[in-house]
Amino acid sequence: MDHNLLRDLLEQVRDGRTDVGAAAERLRHLPFEDLGFAKVDHHRALRHGVPEVIFGLGKAPEHVVDIAKKLQEKASNLLITRTTKECAAMVLEAIPDAEYFPLSGCIRVWKDKTIFGRGKVGIVCAGTSDIPVAEEARVTAEVMGNEVFSIYDVGVAGIHRLMSNREKLMEAKVLVVCAGMEGALPSAIGGLVSVPVIAVPTSVGYGAAFHGLAAMLGMLTSCASNVTVVNIDNGFGGAYVASLINRP
Amino acid sequence: MDHNLLRDLLEQVRDGRTDVGAAAERLRHLPFEDLGFAKVDHHRALRHGVPEVIFGLGKAPEHVVDIAKKLQEKASNLLITRTTKECAAMVLEAIPDAEYFPLSGCIRVWKDKTIFGRGKVGIVCAGTSDIPVAEEARVTAEVMGNEVFSIYDVGVAGIHRLMSNREKLMEAKVLVVCAGMEGALPSAIGGLVSVPVIAVPTSVGYGAAFHGLAAMLGMLTSCASNVTVVNIDNGFGGAYVASLINRP
Amino acid sequence: MDHNLLRDLLEQVRDGRTDVGAAAERLRHLPFEDLGFAKVDHHRALRHGVPEVIFGLGKAPEHVVDIAKKLQEKASNLLITRTTKECAAMVLEAIPDAEYFPLSGCIRVWKDKTIFGRGKVGIVCAGTSDIPVAEEARVTAEVMGNEVFSIYDVGVAGIHRLMSNREKLMEAKVLVVCAGMEGALPSAIGGLVSVPVIAVPTSVGYGAAFHGLAAMLGMLTSCASNVTVVNIDNGFGGAYVASLINRP
Amino acid sequence: MDHNLLRDLLEQVRDGRTDVGAAAERLRHLPFEDLGFAKVDHHRALRHGVPEVIFGLGKAPEHVVDIAKKLQEKASNLLITRTTKECAAMVLEAIPDAEYFPLSGCIRVWKDKTIFGRGKVGIVCAGTSDIPVAEEARVTAEVMGNEVFSIYDVGVAGIHRLMSNREKLMEAKVLVVCAGMEGALPSAIGGLVSVPVIAVPTSVGYGAAFHGLAAMLGMLTSCASNVTVVNIDNGFGGAYVASLINRP
Amino acid sequence: MDHNLLRDLLEQVRDGRTDVGAAAERLRHLPFEDLGFAKVDHHRALRHGVPEVIFGLGKAPEHVVDIAKKLQEKASNLLITRTTKECAAMVLEAIPDAEYFPLSGCIRVWKDKTIFGRGKVGIVCAGTSDIPVAEEARVTAEVMGNEVFSIYDVGVAGIHRLMSNREKLMEAKVLVVCAGMEGALPSAIGGLVSVPVIAVPTSVGYGAAFHGLAAMLGMLTSCASNVTVVNIDNGFGGAYVASLINRP
Amino acid sequence: MDHNLLRDLLEQVRDGRTDVGAAAERLRHLPFEDLGFAKVDHHRALRHGVPEVIFGLGKAPEHVVDIAKKLQEKASNLLITRTTKECAAMVLEAIPDAEYFPLSGCIRVWKDKTIFGRGKVGIVCAGTSDIPVAEEARVTAEVMGNEVFSIYDVGVAGIHRLMSNREKLMEAKVLVVCAGMEGALPSAIGGLVSVPVIAVPTSVGYGAAFHGLAAMLGMLTSCASNVTVVNIDNGFGGAYVASLINRP
Amino acid sequence: MDHNLLRDLLEQVRDGRTDVGAAAERLRHLPFEDLGFAKVDHHRALRHGVPEVIFGLGKAPEHVVDIAKKLQEKASNLLITRTTKECAAMVLEAIPDAEYFPLSGCIRVWKDKTIFGRGKVGIVCAGTSDIPVAEEARVTAEVMGNEVFSIYDVGVAGIHRLMSNREKLMEAKVLVVCAGMEGALPSAIGGLVSVPVIAVPTSVGYGAAFHGLAAMLGMLTSCASNVTVVNIDNGFGGAYVASLINRP
Amino acid sequence: MDHNLLRDLLEQVRDGRTDVGAAAERLRHLPFEDLGFAKVDHHRALRHGVPEVIFGLGKAPEHVVDIAKKLQEKASNLLITRTTKECAAMVLEAIPDAEYFPLSGCIRVWKDKTIFGRGKVGIVCAGTSDIPVAEEARVTAEVMGNEVFSIYDVGVAGIHRLMSNREKLMEAKVLVVCAGMEGALPSAIGGLVSVPVIAVPTSVGYGAAFHGLAAMLGMLTSCASNVTVVNIDNGFGGAYVASLINRP
Repeated sequence: MDHNLLRDLLEQVRDGRTDVGAAAERLRHLPFEDLGFAKVDHHRALRHGVPEVIFGLGKAPEHVVDIAKKLQEKASNLLITRTTKECAAMVLEAIPDAEYFPLSGCIRVWKDKTIFGRGKVGIVCAGTSDIPVAEEARVTAEVMGNEVFSIYDVGVAGIHRLMSNREKLMEAKVLVVCAGMEGALPSAIGGLVSVPVIAVPTSVGYGAAFHGLAAMLGMLTSCASNVTVVNIDNGFGGAYVASLINRP
Repeated sequence: MDHNLLRDLLEQVRDGRTDVGAAAERLRHLPFEDLGFAKVDHHRALRHGVPEVIFGLGKAPEHVVDIAKKLQEKASNLLITRTTKECAAMVLEAIPDAEYFPLSGCIRVWKDKTIFGRGKVGIVCAGTSDIPVAEEARVTAEVMGNEVFSIYDVGVAGIHRLMSNREKLMEAKVLVVCAGMEGALPSAIGGLVSVPVIAVPTSVGYGAAFHGLAAMLGMLTSCASNVTVVNIDNGFGGAYVASLINRP
Repeated sequence: MDHNLLRDLLEQVRDGRTDVGAAAERLRHLPFEDLGFAKVDHHRALRHGVPEVIFGLGKAPEHVVDIAKKLQEKASNLLITRTTKECAAMVLEAIPDAEYFPLSGCIRVWKDKTIFGRGKVGIVCAGTSDIPVAEEARVTAEVMGNEVFSIYDVGVAGIHRLMSNREKLMEAKVLVVCAGMEGALPSAIGGLVSVPVIAVPTSVGYGAAFHGLAAMLGMLTSCASNVTVVNIDNGFGGAYVASLINRP
Repeated sequence: MDHNLLRDLLEQVRDGRTDVGAAAERLRHLPFEDLGFAKVDHHRALRHGVPEVIFGLGKAPEHVVDIAKKLQEKASNLLITRTTKECAAMVLEAIPDAEYFPLSGCIRVWKDKTIFGRGKVGIVCAGTSDIPVAEEARVTAEVMGNEVFSIYDVGVAGIHRLMSNREKLMEAKVLVVCAGMEGALPSAIGGLVSVPVIAVPTSVGYGAAFHGLAAMLGMLTSCASNVTVVNIDNGFGGAYVASLINRP
Repeated sequence: MDHNLLRDLLEQVRDGRTDVGAAAERLRHLPFEDLGFAKVDHHRALRHGVPEVIFGLGKAPEHVVDIAKKLQEKASNLLITRTTKECAAMVLEAIPDAEYFPLSGCIRVWKDKTIFGRGKVGIVCAGTSDIPVAEEARVTAEVMGNEVFSIYDVGVAGIHRLMSNREKLMEAKVLVVCAGMEGALPSAIGGLVSVPVIAVPTSVGYGAAFHGLAAMLGMLTSCASNVTVVNIDNGFGGAYVASLINRP
Repeated sequence: MDHNLLRDLLEQVRDGRTDVGAAAERLRHLPFEDLGFAKVDHHRALRHGVPEVIFGLGKAPEHVVDIAKKLQEKASNLLITRTTKECAAMVLEAIPDAEYFPLSGCIRVWKDKTIFGRGKVGIVCAGTSDIPVAEEARVTAEVMGNEVFSIYDVGVAGIHRLMSNREKLMEAKVLVVCAGMEGALPSAIGGLVSVPVIAVPTSVGYGAAFHGLAAMLGMLTSCASNVTVVNIDNGFGGAYVASLINRP
Repeated sequence: MDHNLLRDLLEQVRDGRTDVGAAAERLRHLPFEDLGFAKVDHHRALRHGVPEVIFGLGKAPEHVVDIAKKLQEKASNLLITRTTKECAAMVLEAIPDAEYFPLSGCIRVWKDKTIFGRGKVGIVCAGTSDIPVAEEARVTAEVMGNEVFSIYDVGVAGIHRLMSNREKLMEAKVLVVCAGMEGALPSAIGGLVSVPVIAVPTSVGYGAAFHGLAAMLGMLTSCASNVTVVNIDNGFGGAYVASLINRP
Repeated sequence: MDHNLLRDLLEQVRDGRTDVGAAAERLRHLPFEDLGFAKVDHHRALRHGVPEVIFGLGKAPEHVVDIAKKLQEKASNLLITRTTKECAAMVLEAIPDAEYFPLSGCIRVWKDKTIFGRGKVGIVCAGTSDIPVAEEARVTAEVMGNEVFSIYDVGVAGIHRLMSNREKLMEAKVLVVCAGMEGALPSAIGGLVSVPVIAVPTSVGYGAAFHGLAAMLGMLTSCASNVTVVNIDNGFGGAYVASLINRP
């Protein structure tokens, strides 16, 4: 429809109903969507298998259900992050296909299970308390069409466990590494592998952890050159970028 | 040589000169390098065209020259970051093949110009003051075997200039985006493209910029899901990860 | 009455009941209100259509109701910000004319709808989570006698939506732009328009957003010269200044 | 020239040399500048008497001279902020019309002295150490076509001096108030006047002033509703917004 | 009893039962309390009319009641700060003489109302939200034997109200000034009076107030030389020092 | 079992079933645990009397009970830190030998009471509010096989009480000193003794204490050279290191 | 002269040359100084023996000399703080009576040596590096008419030295205590004496001292109730308040 | 001499020249040093082989030379930390026995080389830039009578190098581990050994390293329970505590 507006204008020029000067002037003032850009965007999303995503934090349950139902009609895959138990119950009732992941608060509708990735995405976390963030990452990486493996509880203070998983780590095309406290795991893993490591600081810890600040600063100053960082507890973001990296 | 140590031991077992129990015990106490791990590492580096790198900041010029000469013998490509003018003069005298990039303080020996990347790496920066960081990124991306293009001075406050480069941006397989002050450029670009955006906060700015803190926090909290962040002024790191992402 | 005190003194001087030295001495020690300054102030408020305002945060509901009833007697317009649901229910019962805005917690009595502004005040916000702050701004701008329009959910990561509203933005005499996370929207809008942009950082976000700190620093270091900043979540303050700017 | 590109395309459509579908497709991929947006921008600048501005901090003197000479050819007014003495000497030699303000490091070419403002812009500062920032504001406000007055050294700890200037303050259409240390002056002035107050925190002070942080936080949390804030030491920015507010 | 230990030792020396060398050695190892220092301390407290004080924050109600009953037996005056409603109810039942101040959570037993001060202690606060802290200060100053007056709600943004209280302020021998938000009131008052001003930052405010940090930094960097600062919300501490200053 | 894997390989070499080259290759890719490292680790733990430890914070009660039951089967001593009342009740029901320490939330199973230490571990705290952290330290130090003594409520502002305990302090081989607020106690004690002082900042305090930050910074900048610091509220960690120091 | 303006007006009223209404109106608009307030202020300064003070930091030497010469004409005592060596040389040449204190950078003209204080002001510092700040305090306290004693180098980590000075400390009516690093000295002294303790954090230290932040936070959270705090390195401010406290 | 004062008093009591009451009173007011405590302290220092130490940072060279000469007369070992080259030259001229360590700026006089330690002290650092801090630690540990070994350049991002040194690390009785950037090395080493690890954050790094803050927070939140932390760059302090731990 929007597209027609542009075509209409051009047809008017073609047919001599509008002259060139007036058309040029109008074009400069057309809203961008009328130029059809949004459509390009829509198309691209389909191409890459990116699901529709709802960021659930702070949204009213009714609101989440409404958006979810609408989005789920036009997209085969849907991801809702950071919901509450109450919200999850309502969504599950409204959308029977949905899975709920209580540790991370994710809800997922995963109908199209096509694999888009070139290789495997590895999800790693340092301690058991980091699992909720790692789970958000895993659920995201899967729904975005990746082959995923997880290695949990391999903190830097137990290097033997980490070294035991060396071979596994080397299978990944890209790694998402979640760690709280001092956040040293991405550096250690970054030194073991040559693929990109997406570091996700978690808010796990107390005192000088300052809700993830210590881990975040540590990851940003990593001496391993293959480490980049996303926001504290942002398992979704870490897996999202990892999925893009894993695209052909 | 190290490798021989392991082989020697195994040969002793084979030949019956050492029994299995003693060999198992010794294996558990062998230094890791003796197991040949370092060699694997060396091999991997060659495979990917990663140059030898010297982080020049705070190193004495004589020290840099010494390391540079030694590394340059065994590697075809060499990168030295953050040197001073004095240091650069000494290196250029010692290594005639070296190029010097005065804005960023980089020195580069670039003999092997093989392209390893799948696509293009785009280097973008927000203001003219961010160019030194962008240059460090460009020099790095090139020496790591990527086809590189640069777009400088396209800050968020002049969205027209950014939008004019939309087509160019879409050519990239991965983008390195450098910005100081409020560091908003990666978010804006992240919304325009669907490839990974490596955000490099710069220390450009004054007052509430707090030496790059404002930009760094802004990039970490980006509302664009395809943005990850490296350390302030770390153009090298941004391009290093971008190169890995661009590998097949 | 206070005024009379000054007049009385002057009349005493005129009539010779008090001599000049004693009067000069007394004048220097008169409380300021007795000099009638407060009255000037009161007058000014009426002239500009500024409503009576109660900052509700942390006040006991009974207390709010009491102040509201008293103020509403002498002023035609009244604004209460940041009330709780409980408080709102009590005020609405006490003052039937009052409207309640549950997202932002504002209550408004809007009898005098005179327009004082020279042009339009535009209220813009980046994401749906910023709407409560934007609503506080809108409600304030309206009750202060401005023609107001709102554009919600036009974050920097979706520049197309922002560009689509370019024409609309240019209609404003002044803009109030609310954004959390990285707070990049005011910079982007500041580059599109030539009018003043009042940036309101919101506490929306998590992790490195640090309750609005990232947005606040980002806005203060904006590379757009027409941006100024108010406190985190201060939609009221943003609209208040915008209203003053819009006065003839 | 750019404009012609759009016209050419439309003429091709009109003349039947390009069909509507192909033209629509090409339009969607035209760089924005080719649509003539930049021109609109240029025009707007002229309309409002905004000078060309060079932010001098960190730029090489030769670089500043080059840009200055180029800009000065097409604009009647030019402002360079934060230059060094050395840079200033070079600019003054190259552009004889330029004035140099050594306290703030500003250089100004002020040929077109048209007054664009509705009223007066008042520049106020708290202590003598804040004068460099206030001077940058004054120089900016003047060159942007405002009638300007200055009140220096009226800190909050000497309220009598501030109150003595009450009448003067009330003459302003908008005030730019610069203060370091605790930065309390904008609040005090905000309570005395009903016009917008642009608060500029300065880095003046030591210890807990933390290079302007104390003043900046103080101004952002001002209990006066007519106060907005720009970056630390940003006298230019404060005056720039004040000038926009003072436009008809 | 402890005292006897020292006397015993000296008597042994006197009587020749212990020789000088052994006594010197033992003296060096005697616990300090045995030297009677604690008693001196107890005496001093009585001399100055300092009440027994219980810091209630985080203490279990039963615990507070126990300590209160014990202390109240040997001291005529008792002050409990920061209690909860529940705790207060239990204390009031156990100690019928006690008064409860619900705004600040103070409980006071005030039997000895002797005035120890040289002059008046003035308690001032900026906004109505600061009253709980000011009340804690007032209750403390009274029970420590001072003539006290209070001036509430005289913030810097309403300088007229402050100036109207100028004469009153000048009556004080020392002032305790409580303010949140930007915390500018102590500076303004410090400039009006020549007596010491004890500034108490309060945690009142939101956003950039950062729970009292903005006010605290502002007060520490006050340009008035007669201002000193105590901890955020520490009304008790402010009044305690003021009482000492007011002692002869 | 894992161990057998290594032996098997060596036996194959011995028996000629695998040649040396293939064995060397396989060895380099064996997971570390297969090399028997974990076993060494297990042995070491037993040697030093370190109990099994569960960090209870944020773990679900059922989860804690499960781990506790499993660990308690193979270890004689077990320590659970930071449990809730609910969790404690469930653990005590499941493990009748367990003691519960409600102030600190610790649970302890202490069957093997062997003393491993060379001397005494002293646990000191500054105020009564620091006792929960000190208790966590005491419970830990005891279960790790140390002779322990405690000195509570000897803050720096009452130096007499501290000095009275001088002799007692000098009995320790190592001290764990817990303090909130300004955290000055470790410095003062560090100056009195010549043994290592493990400083534990506590989150006790309000306002500028910033949840333990003030104490933590104070302890790290201690002018006593024998002071080292662990995380805020980390009584367990302080006692753990003290126990290691006290080992022969 | 200003005063005459008020008298003139009142005489006009007395003589019937101006009527009461017009006079009242004019009075409301008279600048404050014309009401003679400044004079009151001047008088007060003389009464208390407060010297003229120049804050030298960042002022040009010529500027300091000019102000110093002017002030020194009307005041018998003059204090210049934080000068450079160059500045000091110029002042000493211009004002032969001046003394220079190179550690602190103070310059003092001390002609009127009247003692105004009730008792002694004690200046204490923790380490030899704190002496410059302590010296600024001593020089200030002396020139403000106090009997002063100093105790240097009595840090908390050497409590014996502090305790040896116990008797001396108790002679003071008020103490100024300067300390860097962890800033624990004011708490320790606060516990030994019952007079007010003005704590001056110094920027002495490195690392986690963060230029005085650690000391400042420590002092603000002191567990001694008689401690108040001034800005980092503000020896002048500490002594200024101490002098006021010591006034009769 | 001081000691005599106490003995004199006791002799007076013995001889009946002073009665018990007066002696008790005088004892309570004797300065502490007169009780001979300082002597105990002196003695203790000798017992443990602790050298005399001068903290050179910020001290004038002449001052350092003076103190050094005086201390060196009565002590066999002397350590000066953080001197400048100029200072070092002067000290070396004055004390020919002194060694100078230019990387760390340490000067050492090491005459008494007795070994006091139970085992070895290991000094480890992460990168070559951390060597100055490690050297300060090594020089200190040696002069305090320990057998010392060093392992440099074994950062977490190259775990193989760290693992290769596993056996060596296990030889230590205590480890001092210096690391800048993300400071992850102490955690990794803490997991490999069971002895205490003294972590020394260094100011090495840039950007988000914030002069050692990132490393410091990382170490304080280490997930390895045997890690404690000293101040940023405090190699001396780390080795000092390590030496105490290594004492019998």
